Amino acid sequence: MSRPRFNSLIESLPALVPFVGPEAQERGRGQPFRARLGANESLFGPSPKALAAMRAAADGNWMYADPESHELRAALAEFHGVGLDNVVIGEGIDGLLGLAVKLAVELGSPVVTSDGTYPTFNFHVAGGGGRLVRVPYRDDKQDLGALVEATRSEEARILYVCNPDNPMGSFWGAAELNDLIAQLPDGVLLCLDEAYCDTARQADLLPVDVGNAQVLRFRTFSKAYGLAGARIGYCLGEAKVIRAFEKIRNHYGINRVGQIGALAALEDQEFLAEAVARIARARELIGAIARDNGLQPLSSAANFVTIDCGGDGDFAKRVLDALIAQDVFVRMPGVAPLNRCIRVSCGRDEDLAVLADTLPLALAAAR
Amino acid sequence: MSRPRFNSLIESLPALVPFVGPEAQERGRGQPFRARLGANESLFGPSPKALAAMRAAADGNWMYADPESHELRAALAEFHGVGLDNVVIGEGIDGLLGLAVKLAVELGSPVVTSDGTYPTFNFHVAGGGGRLVRVPYRDDKQDLGALVEATRSEEARILYVCNPDNPMGSFWGAAELNDLIAQLPDGVLLCLDEAYCDTARQADLLPVDVGNAQVLRFRTFSKAYGLAGARIGYCLGEAKVIRAFEKIRNHYGINRVGQIGALAALEDQEFLAEAVARIARARELIGAIARDNGLQPLSSAANFVTIDCGGDGDFAKRVLDALIAQDVFVRMPGVAPLNRCIRVSCGRDEDLAVLADTLPLALAAAR
Repeated sequence: MSRPRFNSLIESLPALVPFVGPEAQERGRGQPFRARLGANESLFGPSPKALAAMRAAADGNWMYADPESHELRAALAEFHGVGLDNVVIGEGIDGLLGLAVKLAVELGSPVVTSDGTYPTFNFHVAGGGGRLVRVPYRDDKQDLGALVEATRSEEARILYVCNPDNPMGSFWGAAELNDLIAQLPDGVLLCLDEAYCDTARQADLLPVDVGNAQVLRFRTFSKAYGLAGARIGYCLGEAKVIRAFEKIRNHYGINRVGQIGALAALEDQEFLAEAVARIARARELIGAIARDNGLQPLSSAANFVTIDCGGDGDFAKRVLDALIAQDVFVRMPGVAPLNRCIRVSCGRDEDLAVLADTLPLALAAAR
Repeated sequence: MSRPRFNSLIESLPALVPFVGPEAQERGRGQPFRARLGANESLFGPSPKALAAMRAAADGNWMYADPESHELRAALAEFHGVGLDNVVIGEGIDGLLGLAVKLAVELGSPVVTSDGTYPTFNFHVAGGGGRLVRVPYRDDKQDLGALVEATRSEEARILYVCNPDNPMGSFWGAAELNDLIAQLPDGVLLCLDEAYCDTARQADLLPVDVGNAQVLRFRTFSKAYGLAGARIGYCLGEAKVIRAFEKIRNHYGINRVGQIGALAALEDQEFLAEAVARIARARELIGAIARDNGLQPLSSAANFVTIDCGGDGDFAKRVLDALIAQDVFVRMPGVAPLNRCIRVSCGRDEDLAVLADTLPLALAAAR
């Protein structure tokens, strides 16, 4: 008996967890949260039609789901006006980002991202042996000019852009992104993480163009569609690039109930529009609560609002901890200067009432 | 605009799909199957308690599942008499096998398996850049002596053993496997795929020993538990090895409804015992149908029976195609000499009645 020999990359990696879940925090605290406003889930839930479809789908869960996810992909292809071969389904955007890294990255490959944006992408780059090049934000937005510059100078394999951005909520429209795409160096893959695009101004959204093999669009049912637990993300791109995912993805990895729920959710655009309206209203409410407490909400195109606590990272962390002590689950950016903020997910009136009650106490405690 | 630059391993891989699903076959045929006996799902379904739990869980699907799968892991740890840190959950055994390959394999690493056993493992080895060393079967069983010999001579990083074996149904008990484990060369990881262990003689099953860091046990809710669509597999092993999965797994990849269903299924061991009894009876029935048609069923410890069609691979393929033409979904081994057989999953009486009706016609057509 000995220890198994792992590959050298694995030995070098920390056993890092990208996000500790609220459940682990509740176990640690010995007490549940009163308001779950930290994971950017949709407290407005999914379409009732999706709920009904998932309940009915349980009976069929003795069967593997179609590994080609044909029905869901066909519906998404129609929805986006692209071909079936332009769509691949994954276990959330996280799963698909891991695969994209595996496609394009080898040991030491440079990968460009913004310093402080979605950390699970960084986790996958580390796991794939890539070398992360982190570009600072500029005025709380991803700095598209500096990102393309770094991509060029580093000869990066992937450029990651999260739009609308997590954790800042900022948004680049089609004009700016088309500029970026026009400047992409040859060979680099732009991974455009659009988890939050359903809540952005649709008229400003970069149109889907699957003719460009350098651009992948990552979408999800976890946010505005209200199906985070279903783990259904998808990626739109040029057919040959999408086909490459077939070489490495877990073909039977997508659960049946989630697929069926996502299809029903997609088909209920009326509900999505309602949910988006409720999210927009909640953004206003969170902004008002922040301002009532002398804090500055950042403009957000996402289903959360990031609030500048007006101090440094230590102060924001104290506010966060005090909110958690008041049974309010929220999160905050991990990197300065973004970490002067806390991030609050859109919730129902009753969830935001808890925030309104507890934020003054948390600020007092933090001060 | 250019093509993205993929890593050289990816460029070298075929866009191979391990298993075409029955749904794709149905789309191709323009007609549904009458009997779904090809994917080793459980036609006896999951526990009614699991069904009820999944239906109820749909309402909570707006939330991500606990990324630590704490409740399910705790229940599995208790069930197996191991610690919480000896259990990791994955998107089916397939997902976990992919991670195990990523842990232990680097470009060119030798990996030993049996020639003709579960091909999805081979798919993951190819995707991880490993070099597969295939050891022939001996008398339709995985040849443990030759496997350990190849592992030693090739200095393999992983030895894969499927037990009970897919596609042959054969089974090695604790005595033989303990011999194998005692002979494992230092540093190699034994991946013991026990997807079908619930239907084997439990008294002969290798006891779980999480003290040995070289052995990983892969289990699933997809087979006897009847939850293939839920995509919940798990892996038992020594704590430091299990912890290494945290470095690379998709922490939020496990769907909520599936987790909750699996927990309820685990808690209903009475139903599992009934399902196992029905599977055992179906094995007898399939064997009788084979013999009625002059064919030889192989002894099976799994939830399927592999039937020797008495000819070569071409003949068995004709039988398979003729069954499919008769709307019976079955599969067959892909490698000679195993491919003289077809593989039939255990089903209900009505499913096997379809088999009994169609097998004589299929044999006549094949001849």
